[in-house]
Amino acid sequence: MPSFTARLQNACAANQSLVCVGLDPDPARMPIDDVVEFNRAIVESTADQACAYKPNLAFYEALGMPGLRALESTVALIRQSAPSAVIIGDAKRGDIGPSAEAYAKAMFQVWNFDAVTLNAWGGRDTVEPFLGDEQRGVFIWCRGSNPGSVDLQDLKIESDSGKVPLYQHLAAEAQTWNAKDNLGLVVGATFPEQLAQVRTLGATMPLLIPGVGAQGGDLEAAIRNGTDAEGRLAIINSSRGIIYASTGPDFAEAARRAASDLREAINRVLDAEGKGWP
Amino acid sequence: MPSFTARLQNACAANQSLVCVGLDPDPARMPIDDVVEFNRAIVESTADQACAYKPNLAFYEALGMPGLRALESTVALIRQSAPSAVIIGDAKRGDIGPSAEAYAKAMFQVWNFDAVTLNAWGGRDTVEPFLGDEQRGVFIWCRGSNPGSVDLQDLKIESDSGKVPLYQHLAAEAQTWNAKDNLGLVVGATFPEQLAQVRTLGATMPLLIPGVGAQGGDLEAAIRNGTDAEGRLAIINSSRGIIYASTGPDFAEAARRAASDLREAINRVLDAEGKGWP
Repeated sequence: MPSFTARLQNACAANQSLVCVGLDPDPARMPIDDVVEFNRAIVESTADQACAYKPNLAFYEALGMPGLRALESTVALIRQSAPSAVIIGDAKRGDIGPSAEAYAKAMFQVWNFDAVTLNAWGGRDTVEPFLGDEQRGVFIWCRGSNPGSVDLQDLKIESDSGKVPLYQHLAAEAQTWNAKDNLGLVVGATFPEQLAQVRTLGATMPLLIPGVGAQGGDLEAAIRNGTDAEGRLAIINSSRGIIYASTGPDFAEAARRAASDLREAINRVLDAEGKGWP
Repeated sequence: MPSFTARLQNACAANQSLVCVGLDPDPARMPIDDVVEFNRAIVESTADQACAYKPNLAFYEALGMPGLRALESTVALIRQSAPSAVIIGDAKRGDIGPSAEAYAKAMFQVWNFDAVTLNAWGGRDTVEPFLGDEQRGVFIWCRGSNPGSVDLQDLKIESDSGKVPLYQHLAAEAQTWNAKDNLGLVVGATFPEQLAQVRTLGATMPLLIPGVGAQGGDLEAAIRNGTDAEGRLAIINSSRGIIYASTGPDFAEAARRAASDLREAINRVLDAEGKGWP
Protein backbone atom coordinates (compact mmCIF):
# COMPACT_ATOMS: atom_id res chain seq x y z
CA MET A 1 0.00 0.00 0.00
CA PRO A 2 1.25 3.53 -0.71
CA SER A 3 2.63 5.57 2.17
CA PHE A 4 0.81 8.70 3.31
CA THR A 5 3.36 10.89 1.55
CA ALA A 6 2.85 8.97 -1.69
CA ARG A 7 -0.92 9.38 -1.28
CA LEU A 8 -0.46 13.11 -0.80
CA GLN A 9 1.74 13.34 -3.89
CA ASN A 10 -0.93 11.46 -5.89
CA ALA A 11 -3.61 13.83 -4.61
CA CYS A 12 -1.52 16.82 -5.74
CA ALA A 13 -0.90 15.29 -9.18
CA ALA A 14 -4.59 14.43 -9.67
CA ASN A 15 -5.60 18.11 -9.77
CA GLN A 16 -2.16 19.54 -10.50
CA SER A 17 -2.63 21.48 -7.31
CA LEU A 18 -0.76 22.20 -4.08
CA VAL A 19 -3.82 23.94 -2.58
CA CYS A 20 -5.18 22.79 0.77
CA VAL A 21 -8.56 24.30 1.69
CA GLY A 22 -9.01 24.97 5.40
CA LEU A 23 -12.58 24.33 6.55
CA ASP A 24 -12.96 26.57 9.63
CA PRO A 25 -16.68 27.25 10.04
CA ASP A 26 -17.33 30.46 11.95
CA PRO A 27 -21.01 31.33 12.49
CA ALA A 28 -20.13 35.03 12.59
CA ARG A 29 -18.79 34.87 9.02
CA MET A 30 -20.73 32.07 7.32
CA PRO A 31 -23.34 33.28 4.83
CA ILE A 32 -25.59 30.32 5.68
CA ASP A 33 -26.30 28.79 9.09
CA ASP A 34 -25.81 25.10 8.38
CA VAL A 35 -22.17 24.05 8.74
CA VAL A 36 -22.55 20.88 6.71
CA GLU A 37 -24.30 22.64 3.84
CA PHE A 38 -21.69 25.41 3.95
CA ASN A 39 -18.84 22.89 3.80
CA ARG A 40 -20.62 20.85 1.13
CA ALA A 41 -20.97 23.89 -1.13
CA ILE A 42 -17.30 24.83 -0.60
CA VAL A 43 -16.02 21.30 -1.23
CA GLU A 44 -18.18 20.71 -4.31
CA SER A 45 -17.08 24.00 -5.86
CA THR A 46 -13.37 23.46 -5.14
CA ALA A 47 -13.06 19.68 -5.61
CA ASP A 48 -11.05 19.94 -8.84
CA GLN A 49 -8.84 22.77 -7.51
CA ALA A 50 -7.52 21.29 -4.27
CA CYS A 51 -5.28 18.42 -3.19
CA ALA A 52 -6.42 18.45 0.44
CA TYR A 53 -9.03 19.68 2.88
CA LYS A 54 -8.17 20.62 6.43
CA PRO A 55 -11.00 20.92 8.96
CA ASN A 56 -9.70 22.66 12.09
CA LEU A 57 -11.27 20.86 15.04
CA ALA A 58 -11.33 23.99 17.21
CA PHE A 59 -14.16 25.49 15.16
CA TYR A 60 -16.28 22.34 15.35
CA GLU A 61 -15.70 21.82 19.08
CA ALA A 62 -16.70 25.44 19.71
CA LEU A 63 -20.13 24.61 18.30
CA GLY A 64 -20.68 21.78 20.76
CA MET A 65 -22.29 18.46 19.88
CA PRO A 66 -23.94 19.79 16.69
CA GLY A 67 -20.51 21.00 15.55
CA LEU A 68 -19.00 17.57 16.15
CA ARG A 69 -21.81 15.90 14.21
CA ALA A 70 -21.11 18.42 11.42
CA LEU A 71 -17.45 17.40 11.47
CA GLU A 72 -18.45 13.75 11.07
CA SER A 73 -20.65 14.66 8.09
CA THR A 74 -17.94 16.90 6.63
CA VAL A 75 -15.37 14.09 6.43
CA ALA A 76 -17.98 11.89 4.74
CA LEU A 77 -18.96 14.54 2.20
CA ILE A 78 -15.33 15.26 1.30
CA ARG A 79 -14.79 11.52 0.63
CA GLN A 80 -17.80 11.60 -1.68
CA SER A 81 -17.30 14.92 -3.48
CA ALA A 82 -13.48 15.01 -3.62
CA PRO A 83 -12.41 11.36 -3.52
CA SER A 84 -8.81 12.02 -4.55
CA ALA A 85 -8.25 14.63 -1.80
CA VAL A 86 -6.39 14.00 1.43
CA ILE A 87 -8.30 14.98 4.59
CA ILE A 88 -6.18 16.51 7.35
CA GLY A 89 -7.62 16.84 10.85
CA ASP A 90 -6.05 20.03 12.17
CA ALA A 91 -6.13 19.15 15.86
CA LYS A 92 -2.64 19.92 17.17
CA ARG A 93 -3.04 17.06 19.64
CA GLY A 94 -0.18 15.87 21.84
CA ASP A 95 -0.15 13.73 24.97
CA ILE A 96 1.71 10.80 26.50
CA GLY A 97 1.28 7.02 26.58
CA PRO A 98 -2.29 5.71 26.67
CA SER A 99 -3.63 9.24 26.05
CA ALA A 100 -1.65 9.55 22.81
CA GLU A 101 -2.93 6.15 21.73
CA ALA A 102 -6.49 7.24 22.49
CA TYR A 103 -6.06 10.43 20.43
CA ALA A 104 -4.64 8.41 17.53
CA LYS A 105 -7.68 6.15 17.68
CA ALA A 106 -9.97 9.19 17.75
CA MET A 107 -8.32 10.95 14.81
CA PHE A 108 -7.83 7.97 12.52
CA GLN A 109 -10.51 5.45 13.47
CA VAL A 110 -13.34 7.61 14.80
CA TRP A 111 -13.01 10.72 12.63
CA ASN A 112 -11.35 8.84 9.76
CA PHE A 113 -8.83 11.54 8.90
CA ASP A 114 -5.99 10.67 6.51
CA ALA A 115 -3.61 12.82 8.50
CA VAL A 116 -3.49 14.86 11.69
CA THR A 117 -1.54 17.87 12.91
CA LEU A 118 0.32 17.20 16.16
CA ASN A 119 2.14 19.18 18.81
CA ALA A 120 5.41 17.40 19.64
CA TRP A 121 6.20 19.28 22.88
CA GLY A 122 6.06 15.92 24.69
CA GLY A 123 8.73 14.38 22.43
CA ARG A 124 9.05 11.40 20.17
CA ASP A 125 6.97 8.95 22.23
CA THR A 126 3.97 11.28 21.98
CA VAL A 127 4.15 11.18 18.17
CA GLU A 128 4.85 7.49 17.58
CA PRO A 129 1.33 6.18 18.32
CA PHE A 130 0.19 8.15 15.24
CA LEU A 131 2.84 6.72 12.90
CA GLY A 132 1.97 3.02 13.02
CA ASP A 133 -0.16 2.96 9.86
CA GLU A 134 2.02 4.02 6.93
CA GLN A 135 -1.05 5.15 5.00
CA ARG A 136 -2.03 7.68 7.66
CA GLY A 137 0.09 10.75 8.14
CA VAL A 138 1.20 13.25 10.74
CA PHE A 139 2.21 16.89 10.37
CA ILE A 140 4.14 18.08 13.43
CA TRP A 141 3.69 21.76 14.25
CA CYS A 142 7.26 22.98 13.75
CA ARG A 143 7.22 26.78 13.27
CA GLY A 144 4.07 28.86 13.55
CA SER A 145 2.98 31.93 11.64
CA ASN A 146 1.92 33.75 14.84
CA PRO A 147 3.89 36.36 16.83
CA GLY A 148 4.22 34.05 19.87
CA SER A 149 6.12 31.48 17.81
CA VAL A 150 9.29 33.27 18.89
CA ASP A 151 8.61 32.49 22.58
CA LEU A 152 9.74 28.85 22.43
CA GLN A 153 10.21 27.79 18.80
CA ASP A 154 12.95 30.32 18.03
CA LEU A 155 14.99 29.87 21.21
CA LYS A 156 18.58 28.88 20.49
CA ILE A 157 19.66 25.48 21.71
CA GLU A 158 22.98 23.66 21.63
CA SER A 159 23.15 20.90 19.02
CA ASP A 160 25.75 18.84 17.19
CA SER A 161 25.92 21.58 14.54
CA GLY A 162 26.27 24.48 16.99
CA LYS A 163 23.51 26.77 18.22
CA VAL A 164 20.28 26.36 16.29
CA PRO A 165 16.73 27.61 16.79
CA LEU A 166 14.58 24.99 18.48
CA TYR A 167 12.21 24.62 15.50
CA GLN A 168 15.18 23.64 13.31
CA HIS A 169 16.28 21.08 15.89
CA LEU A 170 12.75 19.67 15.87
CA ALA A 171 12.75 19.49 12.06
CA ALA A 172 16.01 17.55 12.06
CA GLU A 173 14.80 15.22 14.83
CA ALA A 174 11.50 14.58 13.08
CA GLN A 175 13.35 13.61 9.90
CA THR A 176 14.90 10.73 11.89
CA TRP A 177 11.43 9.64 13.09
CA ASN A 178 10.08 9.34 9.53
CA ALA A 179 10.74 5.63 9.02
CA LYS A 180 7.43 4.96 7.25
CA ASP A 181 7.28 7.97 4.91
CA ASN A 182 4.22 9.34 6.70
CA LEU A 183 5.57 12.28 8.69
CA GLY A 184 5.54 15.94 7.72
CA LEU A 185 5.84 19.37 9.30
CA VAL A 186 3.68 22.48 9.65
CA VAL A 187 5.71 25.61 8.91
CA GLY A 188 4.17 29.06 8.50
CA ALA A 189 4.63 31.07 5.31
CA THR A 190 5.29 34.32 7.14
CA PHE A 191 9.06 33.83 7.31
CA PRO A 192 10.20 32.25 4.01
CA GLU A 193 13.82 31.87 5.11
CA GLN A 194 12.63 29.55 7.88
CA LEU A 195 10.86 27.45 5.29
CA ALA A 196 14.13 27.06 3.40
CA GLN A 197 15.92 25.89 6.56
CA VAL A 198 13.21 23.36 7.36
CA ARG A 199 13.10 22.13 3.77
CA THR A 200 16.83 21.35 3.99
CA LEU A 201 16.61 19.67 7.39
CA GLY A 202 13.48 17.67 6.64
CA ALA A 203 14.52 16.47 3.22
CA THR A 204 11.92 13.76 2.67
CA MET A 205 9.04 15.26 4.61
CA PRO A 206 5.99 17.03 3.18
CA LEU A 207 5.39 20.54 4.51
CA LEU A 208 1.97 21.93 5.32
CA ILE A 209 2.27 25.69 4.95
CA PRO A 210 -0.37 27.99 6.45
CA GLY A 211 -0.17 31.74 6.64
CA VAL A 212 -0.65 32.90 3.06
CA GLY A 213 -3.71 35.03 2.43
CA ALA A 214 -5.27 36.34 5.65
CA GLN A 215 -1.96 36.09 7.50
CA GLY A 216 0.01 37.89 4.76
CA GLY A 217 2.74 35.38 3.90
CA ASP A 218 4.67 35.77 0.64
CA LEU A 219 3.34 33.03 -1.64
CA GLU A 220 6.12 33.03 -4.21
CA ALA A 221 8.85 32.75 -1.58
CA ALA A 222 6.88 30.06 0.25
CA ILE A 223 6.70 27.95 -2.92
CA ARG A 224 10.33 28.44 -3.87
CA ASN A 225 11.56 27.71 -0.34
CA GLY A 226 9.03 25.13 0.79
CA THR A 227 8.93 22.70 -2.13
CA ASP A 228 11.58 20.08 -2.82
CA ALA A 229 13.95 19.91 -5.79
CA GLU A 230 11.08 18.72 -8.00
CA GLY A 231 8.74 21.52 -6.91
CA ARG A 232 6.61 19.14 -4.86
CA LEU A 233 6.23 17.90 -1.26
CA ALA A 234 4.66 21.12 0.03
CA ILE A 235 1.02 22.11 0.25
CA ILE A 236 -0.25 25.62 0.80
CA ASN A 237 -3.23 26.04 3.10
CA SER A 238 -5.72 28.85 2.80
CA SER A 239 -8.77 28.92 5.06
CA ARG A 240 -10.42 32.33 5.40
CA GLY A 241 -9.03 33.50 2.04
CA ILE A 242 -11.05 30.81 0.29
CA ILE A 243 -14.10 29.97 2.36
CA TYR A 244 -14.93 33.61 3.18
CA ALA A 245 -13.91 35.03 -0.21
CA SER A 246 -17.49 36.22 -0.33
CA THR A 247 -19.95 36.34 2.54
CA GLY A 248 -22.87 36.73 0.15
CA PRO A 249 -24.97 34.08 -1.61
CA ASP A 250 -22.19 33.63 -4.19
CA PHE A 251 -19.81 32.28 -1.50
CA ALA A 252 -19.29 28.92 -3.22
CA GLU A 253 -18.43 30.49 -6.58
CA ALA A 254 -16.14 32.99 -4.86
CA ALA A 255 -14.44 30.15 -3.00
CA ARG A 256 -13.88 28.36 -6.29
CA ARG A 257 -12.35 31.51 -7.83
CA ALA A 258 -10.10 32.04 -4.80
CA ALA A 259 -8.95 28.42 -4.80
CA SER A 260 -8.40 28.50 -8.55
CA ASP A 261 -6.48 31.79 -8.32
CA LEU A 262 -4.24 30.35 -5.60
CA ARG A 263 -3.69 27.12 -7.54
CA GLU A 264 -2.74 29.06 -10.66
CA ALA A 265 -0.48 31.47 -8.79
CA ILE A 266 1.36 28.49 -7.30
CA ASN A 267 1.60 26.75 -10.66
CA ARG A 268 3.00 29.90 -12.30
CA VAL A 269 5.82 29.85 -9.75
CA LEU A 270 6.45 26.16 -10.42
CA ASP A 271 6.44 26.80 -14.19
CA ALA A 272 8.90 29.67 -13.82
CA GLU A 273 11.20 27.31 -11.91
CA GLY A 274 10.90 24.68 -14.64
CA LYS A 275 9.01 22.44 -12.21
CA GLY A 276 5.51 22.65 -13.64
CA TRP A 277 3.12 19.71 -13.93
CA PRO A 278 3.75 17.24 -16.78
CA MET B 1 -15.25 37.03 42.29
CA PRO B 2 -12.47 34.67 43.41
CA SER B 3 -9.72 33.86 40.97
CA PHE B 4 -9.32 30.31 39.68
CA THR B 5 -6.37 29.74 41.98
CA ALA B 6 -8.44 30.90 44.96
CA ARG B 7 -11.26 28.56 43.88
CA LEU B 8 -8.78 25.68 43.70
CA GLN B 9 -7.43 26.49 47.16
CA ASN B 10 -11.01 26.53 48.50
CA ALA B 11 -11.70 23.17 46.86
CA CYS B 12 -8.60 21.72 48.53
CA ALA B 13 -9.56 23.13 51.93
CA ALA B 14 -13.14 21.86 51.68
CA ASN B 15 -12.03 18.22 51.79
CA GLN B 16 -8.56 18.79 53.23
CA SER B 17 -7.31 17.10 50.12
CA LEU B 18 -4.77 17.68 47.36
CA VAL B 19 -6.08 14.66 45.40
CA CYS B 20 -7.19 15.09 41.78
CA VAL B 21 -8.97 12.06 40.34
CA GLY B 22 -8.28 11.46 36.64
CA LEU B 23 -11.35 10.15 34.82
CA ASP B 24 -9.88 8.24 31.85
CA PRO B 25 -12.50 5.70 30.79
CA ASP B 26 -10.96 2.75 28.96
CA PRO B 27 -13.43 0.09 27.79
CA ALA B 28 -10.69 -2.56 28.06
CA ARG B 29 -10.36 -1.91 31.80
CA MET B 30 -13.76 -0.67 32.95
CA PRO B 31 -15.75 -3.23 34.97
CA ILE B 32 -19.02 -1.90 33.53
CA ASP B 33 -19.78 -0.80 29.98
CA ASP B 34 -21.48 2.53 30.57
CA VAL B 35 -18.98 5.39 30.83
CA VAL B 36 -21.37 7.74 32.59
CA GLU B 37 -22.41 5.16 35.16
CA PHE B 38 -18.76 4.23 35.69
CA ASN B 39 -17.80 7.86 36.24
CA ARG B 40 -20.86 8.48 38.42
CA ALA B 41 -19.93 5.61 40.73
CA ILE B 42 -16.31 6.82 40.95
CA VAL B 43 -17.27 10.43 41.62
CA GLU B 44 -19.95 9.60 44.20
CA SER B 45 -17.58 7.33 46.10
CA THR B 46 -14.67 9.81 46.08
CA ALA B 47 -16.53 13.13 46.39
CA ASP B 48 -15.35 13.81 49.95
CA GLN B 49 -11.77 12.68 49.22
CA ALA B 50 -10.85 14.82 46.20
CA CYS B 51 -10.34 18.50 45.40
CA ALA B 52 -10.57 18.07 41.65
CA TYR B 53 -11.61 15.76 38.83
CA LYS B 54 -9.73 15.64 35.56
CA PRO B 55 -11.42 14.02 32.56
CA ASN B 56 -8.83 13.43 29.83
CA LEU B 57 -10.53 14.26 26.55
CA ALA B 58 -8.49 11.71 24.58
CA PHE B 59 -10.39 8.82 26.15
CA TYR B 60 -13.79 10.34 25.38
CA GLU B 61 -12.89 11.31 21.81
CA ALA B 62 -11.65 7.75 21.19
CA LEU B 63 -15.20 6.55 21.89
CA GLY B 64 -16.70 8.77 19.22
CA MET B 65 -19.96 10.67 19.59
CA PRO B 66 -21.22 8.47 22.48
CA GLY B 67 -17.97 9.23 24.30
CA LEU B 68 -18.43 12.95 23.82
CA ARG B 69 -22.00 12.75 25.11
CA ALA B 70 -20.62 10.85 28.10
CA LEU B 71 -18.13 13.67 28.69
CA GLU B 72 -20.99 16.19 28.69
CA SER B 73 -22.87 14.07 31.25
CA THR B 74 -19.72 13.56 33.30
CA VAL B 75 -19.15 17.28 33.83
CA ALA B 76 -22.79 17.66 34.88
CA LEU B 77 -22.66 14.76 37.33
CA ILE B 78 -19.46 16.04 38.95
CA ARG B 79 -21.15 19.43 39.50
CA GLN B 80 -24.03 17.63 41.20
CA SER B 81 -22.16 14.99 43.24
CA ALA B 82 -19.01 16.95 44.10
CA PRO B 83 -20.08 20.61 44.00
CA SER B 84 -16.94 21.91 45.72
CA ALA B 85 -14.57 20.18 43.28
CA VAL B 86 -12.77 21.89 40.43
CA ILE B 87 -13.21 20.21 37.03
CA ILE B 88 -10.11 20.23 34.81
CA GLY B 89 -10.46 19.38 31.12
CA ASP B 90 -7.20 17.61 30.30
CA ALA B 91 -7.06 18.50 26.62
CA LYS B 92 -3.52 19.81 26.03
CA ARG B 93 -4.91 22.14 23.38
CA GLY B 94 -2.80 24.79 21.70
CA ASP B 95 -3.32 26.79 18.52
CA ILE B 96 -3.07 30.33 17.20
CA GLY B 97 -5.43 33.31 16.86
CA PRO B 98 -9.05 32.48 16.01
CA SER B 99 -8.38 28.76 16.55
CA ALA B 100 -7.20 29.38 20.12
CA GLU B 101 -10.29 31.50 20.76
CA ALA B 102 -12.48 28.71 19.40
CA TYR B 103 -10.81 26.13 21.67
CA ALA B 104 -11.27 28.44 24.67
CA LYS B 105 -14.95 28.73 23.83
CA ALA B 106 -15.19 24.95 23.49
CA MET B 107 -13.46 24.18 26.77
CA PHE B 108 -15.09 26.82 28.96
CA GLN B 109 -18.46 27.56 27.39
CA VAL B 110 -19.36 24.30 25.65
CA TRP B 111 -17.84 21.73 28.02
CA ASN B 112 -18.04 24.05 31.05
CA PHE B 113 -14.66 23.07 32.53
CA ASP B 114 -13.26 25.20 35.34
CA ALA B 115 -9.76 24.77 33.96
CA VAL B 116 -7.97 23.30 30.97
CA THR B 117 -4.52 21.87 30.31
CA LEU B 118 -2.73 23.62 27.44
CA ASN B 119 0.33 23.06 25.29
CA ALA B 120 2.22 26.36 25.00
CA TRP B 121 4.49 25.39 22.08
CA GLY B 122 2.91 28.25 20.09
CA GLY B 123 3.87 30.85 22.70
CA ARG B 124 2.09 33.40 24.84
CA ASP B 125 -0.53 34.47 22.29
CA THR B 126 -1.80 30.88 22.09
CA VAL B 127 -2.43 30.85 25.87
CA GLU B 128 -3.94 34.30 26.37
CA PRO B 129 -7.40 33.55 24.91
CA PHE B 130 -7.87 31.11 27.82
CA LEU B 131 -6.89 33.61 30.53
CA GLY B 132 -9.56 36.27 30.04
CA ASP B 133 -11.95 35.01 32.74
CA GLU B 134 -10.15 35.10 36.07
CA GLN B 135 -12.43 32.40 37.47
CA ARG B 136 -11.38 29.89 34.80
CA GLY B 137 -7.91 28.48 34.89
CA VAL B 138 -5.14 27.12 32.71
CA PHE B 139 -2.44 24.56 33.45
CA ILE B 140 0.36 24.77 30.89
CA TRP B 141 2.12 21.46 30.21
CA CYS B 142 5.62 22.33 31.43
CA ARG B 143 7.52 19.08 32.13
CA GLY B 144 6.08 15.66 31.36
CA SER B 145 6.49 12.36 33.19
CA ASN B 146 7.19 10.44 29.95
CA PRO B 147 10.58 9.42 28.51
CA GLY B 148 10.19 11.72 25.47
CA SER B 149 10.01 14.77 27.71
CA VAL B 150 13.76 15.04 27.35
CA ASP B 151 13.50 15.52 23.56
CA LEU B 152 12.44 19.19 23.72
CA GLN B 153 11.58 20.13 27.31
CA ASP B 154 15.03 19.43 28.73
CA LEU B 155 17.09 21.07 25.97
CA LYS B 156 19.36 23.79 27.30
CA ILE B 157 18.66 27.31 26.11
CA GLU B 158 20.40 30.61 26.71
CA SER B 159 18.59 32.88 29.15
CA ASP B 160 19.30 35.92 31.32
CA SER B 161 20.41 33.55 34.09
CA GLY B 162 22.68 31.43 31.91
CA LYS B 163 21.85 28.11 30.32
CA VAL B 164 18.63 26.59 31.59
CA PRO B 165 16.46 23.68 30.50
CA LEU B 166 13.60 24.81 28.30
CA TYR B 167 10.89 23.70 30.75
CA GLN B 168 12.41 25.99 33.41
CA HIS B 169 12.43 28.87 30.94
CA LEU B 170 8.76 28.17 30.20
CA ALA B 171 7.94 28.10 33.94
CA ALA B 172 9.60 31.49 34.45
CA GLU B 173 7.87 32.96 31.37
CA ALA B 174 4.48 31.63 32.44
CA GLN B 175 4.88 33.26 35.85
CA THR B 176 4.99 36.63 34.01
CA TRP B 177 1.77 35.76 32.14
CA ASN B 178 -0.17 35.10 35.36
CA ALA B 179 -1.71 38.54 35.77
CA LYS B 180 -5.13 37.23 36.84
CA ASP B 181 -4.09 34.49 39.27
CA ASN B 182 -5.54 31.80 37.03
CA LEU B 183 -2.48 30.16 35.49
CA GLY B 184 -0.70 27.01 36.64
CA LEU B 185 1.66 24.35 35.33
CA VAL B 186 1.63 20.60 34.75
CA VAL B 187 4.83 19.01 36.03
CA GLY B 188 5.34 15.26 36.34
CA ALA B 189 6.18 13.63 39.65
CA THR B 190 8.81 11.34 38.17
CA PHE B 191 11.69 13.79 38.68
CA PRO B 192 11.13 15.53 42.04
CA GLU B 193 14.15 17.84 41.64
CA GLN B 194 12.45 19.33 38.58
CA LEU B 195 9.37 20.01 40.65
CA ALA B 196 11.50 21.98 43.11
CA GLN B 197 12.94 24.10 40.28
CA VAL B 198 9.51 24.83 38.85
CA ARG B 199 8.09 25.62 42.30
CA THR B 200 10.77 28.26 42.72
CA LEU B 201 10.34 29.76 39.25
CA GLY B 202 6.54 29.73 39.30
CA ALA B 203 6.10 31.10 42.78
CA THR B 204 2.41 31.97 42.67
CA MET B 205 1.20 29.27 40.31
CA PRO B 206 -0.61 26.06 41.24
CA LEU B 207 1.02 22.86 40.02
CA LEU B 208 -0.90 19.90 38.64
CA ILE B 209 1.30 16.87 39.28
CA PRO B 210 0.63 13.61 37.42
CA GLY B 211 2.85 10.57 37.48
CA VAL B 212 2.38 9.11 40.95
CA GLY B 213 0.89 5.63 41.10
CA ALA B 214 0.92 3.90 37.71
CA GLN B 215 3.86 5.99 36.52
CA GLY B 216 5.92 5.38 39.67
CA GLY B 217 6.67 8.89 40.90
CA ASP B 218 7.83 9.42 44.48
CA LEU B 219 4.85 10.87 46.33
CA GLU B 220 6.66 12.23 49.37
CA ALA B 221 9.26 14.07 47.28
CA ALA B 222 6.54 15.38 44.99
CA ILE B 223 4.67 16.89 47.93
CA ARG B 224 7.73 18.37 49.58
CA ASN B 225 9.03 19.83 46.32
CA GLY B 226 5.78 20.72 44.58
CA THR B 227 3.85 22.55 47.30
CA ASP B 228 4.48 26.14 48.31
CA ALA B 229 5.78 27.39 51.67
CA GLU B 230 2.36 26.71 53.24
CA GLY B 231 2.16 23.17 51.87
CA ARG B 232 -0.50 24.15 49.34
CA LEU B 233 -0.79 25.19 45.67
CA ALA B 234 -0.11 21.71 44.28
CA ILE B 235 -2.53 18.95 43.44
CA ILE B 236 -1.60 15.33 42.86
CA ASN B 237 -3.39 13.52 40.05
CA SER B 238 -3.99 9.82 40.02
CA SER B 239 -6.04 8.25 37.25
CA ARG B 240 -5.50 4.51 36.78
CA GLY B 241 -4.35 4.08 40.40
CA ILE B 242 -7.80 5.14 41.61
CA ILE B 243 -10.38 4.34 38.93
CA TYR B 244 -8.95 0.88 38.17
CA ALA B 245 -7.99 0.04 41.76
CA SER B 246 -10.32 -2.89 41.27
CA THR B 247 -11.74 -4.13 38.00
CA GLY B 248 -14.40 -6.14 39.80
CA PRO B 249 -17.87 -5.15 40.98
CA ASP B 250 -16.31 -3.43 44.02
CA PHE B 251 -14.57 -0.88 41.78
CA ALA B 252 -16.25 2.15 43.38
CA GLU B 253 -15.36 1.09 46.92
CA ALA B 254 -11.80 0.31 45.78
CA ALA B 255 -11.56 3.73 44.14
CA ARG B 256 -12.69 5.33 47.38
CA ARG B 257 -10.05 3.42 49.34
CA ALA B 258 -7.33 4.34 46.82
CA ALA B 259 -8.32 8.04 46.85
CA SER B 260 -8.54 8.02 50.63
CA ASP B 261 -5.16 6.29 50.96
CA LEU B 262 -3.57 8.87 48.62
CA ARG B 263 -5.22 11.77 50.46
CA GLU B 264 -3.98 10.46 53.81
CA ALA B 265 -0.48 9.75 52.52
CA ILE B 266 -0.28 13.33 51.25
CA ASN B 267 -1.65 14.72 54.50
CA ARG B 268 0.87 12.73 56.53
CA VAL B 269 3.67 14.43 54.57
CA LEU B 270 2.09 17.83 55.15
CA ASP B 271 1.70 17.09 58.87
CA ALA B 272 5.34 16.00 59.11
CA GLU B 273 6.32 19.31 57.55
CA GLY B 274 4.16 21.24 60.02
CA LYS B 275 1.86 22.24 57.17
CA GLY B 276 -1.19 20.11 57.94
CA TRP B 277 -4.77 21.26 57.59
CA PRO B 278 -6.12 23.51 60.38
